[in-house]
Amino acid sequence: MPLQNDLILRAARGEEVSRVPVWLMRQAGRVLPEYRITRLKAPDFISFVKNPELAAEVTVQPVEILGVDAAIIFSDILVVPEALGLPYEMYETKGPYFPKTISCESDIKKLRNASCVEELYYVEEAIRLTKQALHNRVPLIGFAGAPFTIFCYMIEGSSSKTFSKAKKMLYQAPLLSHLLLQKITDCTISYLQMQIRAGANIIQLFDSWAGILTSEQYRTFAIPYIRQILEAISEVPKIVFAKDAFFALADLAKLPCDVIGLDWCTTPEFGRKEVGSQKTLQGNLDPCALYAPDEILIELTQEMLRRFGKNRYIANLGHGLYPDIEKEKAKLFVKTVQEFTFSA
Amino acid sequence: MPLQNDLILRAARGEEVSRVPVWLMRQAGRVLPEYRITRLKAPDFISFVKNPELAAEVTVQPVEILGVDAAIIFSDILVVPEALGLPYEMYETKGPYFPKTISCESDIKKLRNASCVEELYYVEEAIRLTKQALHNRVPLIGFAGAPFTIFCYMIEGSSSKTFSKAKKMLYQAPLLSHLLLQKITDCTISYLQMQIRAGANIIQLFDSWAGILTSEQYRTFAIPYIRQILEAISEVPKIVFAKDAFFALADLAKLPCDVIGLDWCTTPEFGRKEVGSQKTLQGNLDPCALYAPDEILIELTQEMLRRFGKNRYIANLGHGLYPDIEKEKAKLFVKTVQEFTFSA
Repeated sequence: MPLQNDLILRAARGEEVSRVPVWLMRQAGRVLPEYRITRLKAPDFISFVKNPELAAEVTVQPVEILGVDAAIIFSDILVVPEALGLPYEMYETKGPYFPKTISCESDIKKLRNASCVEELYYVEEAIRLTKQALHNRVPLIGFAGAPFTIFCYMIEGSSSKTFSKAKKMLYQAPLLSHLLLQKITDCTISYLQMQIRAGANIIQLFDSWAGILTSEQYRTFAIPYIRQILEAISEVPKIVFAKDAFFALADLAKLPCDVIGLDWCTTPEFGRKEVGSQKTLQGNLDPCALYAPDEILIELTQEMLRRFGKNRYIANLGHGLYPDIEKEKAKLFVKTVQEFTFSA
Repeated sequence: MPLQNDLILRAARGEEVSRVPVWLMRQAGRVLPEYRITRLKAPDFISFVKNPELAAEVTVQPVEILGVDAAIIFSDILVVPEALGLPYEMYETKGPYFPKTISCESDIKKLRNASCVEELYYVEEAIRLTKQALHNRVPLIGFAGAPFTIFCYMIEGSSSKTFSKAKKMLYQAPLLSHLLLQKITDCTISYLQMQIRAGANIIQLFDSWAGILTSEQYRTFAIPYIRQILEAISEVPKIVFAKDAFFALADLAKLPCDVIGLDWCTTPEFGRKEVGSQKTLQGNLDPCALYAPDEILIELTQEMLRRFGKNRYIANLGHGLYPDIEKEKAKLFVKTVQEFTFSA
């Protein structure tokens, strides 16, 4: 059965659209009181992620509550290192923590191989349940962390302002770094293929820590692995979002993907200049603009739309929703995009 | 008496230099074992900052140990909010913490005015003692935080990944934000003038959190205040370092300053294109490159020098030295710059 609303897929492929489609990063999350209620049904965050029924429930919520043009499967980028053999804990304030990290070759050799994605059957199941509940209303976005971002957590063991341990490994042990990046890449390819088999209509790679690299390092340690993933997937459109990586946009534009995500520090004009006209742009309102009074939020959203233009564009924030943003502001953002008319 | 080595001042003013000058952000710090010994003479970080003898001692250390071409007065950008009326505590791992923050107009009204810089007599005294100990060997750099960065700490009360409380204030209360930014600016002008009277030969503004703003916000809430400070100071050359603010380089280039600092994400070519030929560039080796084996560090440093070129350039890192970097690597970086010969 065809999708009732396939605007995001059409925009991703550069086809004509009746209006600009919109979704929000972290739309399935704490910004919705409904999410917070469902969340209480699991004892901790990781059990929550591993429960397909609950994951499907919160994945569908923003489609019904916010009216977004796509669902994104509720999960966590860190399930990949976990499947590879590094379990983690998640703390509300401090973020993730890995008791075991990678520091030498034997640590890497001990990791499982790409077949470990079988462990992630719960994501496959969550996608199947979500697809049933969505009833072809909107597309479902699958996702994974980009290899360098996953690498950062596997070396550093937690979030960090500088990720200097992970970067130290790039400088001191480039061959080992490539070995680990390749392991992550192989697993990520299998993982995304599993998501597509289960029903994901489009996928996004999140390179959250792209911005800590130099442009030369990004070309060496990030781009080749993102390319491998993109080349291995041809069934669905592909989005790459490399946060704070203004310096890599021109390189990303050469990859076989359909959409490039932009953070809020990148102006629409700079993004278009670097990426060129052959790819769709996605983004990029400052998430903090959702703290603004309604009239300011509307004005900023409309200005964003005018600057990006109607074609080859998917509206979104420039990063994930912050948990303390009011649900009504997220709704207003979506509504403003969907009701906007481009003057001829 | 004239300075024996005025390379940094000459480079800042765009004059010819016999070689590229070099210093390192956070050169007076934990990277030096000698600093760690001096540090033990004070019970805590803030008493250390407030002790002119100790501050002068660690300011001179890198000149003697690393052979850098300038000293930078050892202090902290947060002495300005403290003088304004918000005392803070400093924790080795978590960074600064302000028990009292700014959340409304009456909080701002309660702040002291610019005459509060009298409280910072200890910085003045530290500069005088440093100048005596330096014996005109190299210039002394004075510094302050740029107003928006200080604003961030005064609202947020601590470091943050998003500074969403500070940014919320920009969106919800722009007039109040300007009121506070003006207070900080007035105080910063008096503070820098005091540093220059005491003997600072050049000053640097650190806009550490510039990168969390959109380019429009930076133009509204950052540039006008940086401009006021730069216009109020004509006695010495002026450096502005706005970290992660690639989007603001062209705007910064229009300000009455002499040098623009670059972080390591900005390539020399991008920096020069945005800033133009009329200002000196400063930076920008990735601090993590100092984890690399000697031959790689030398290669990366030489590549940086070749790309920036000999003129209108001051070599530095793209951010402060990380505390776990080996002293010998910092020395090697300095030596590599100082011994480099540009081929004709």
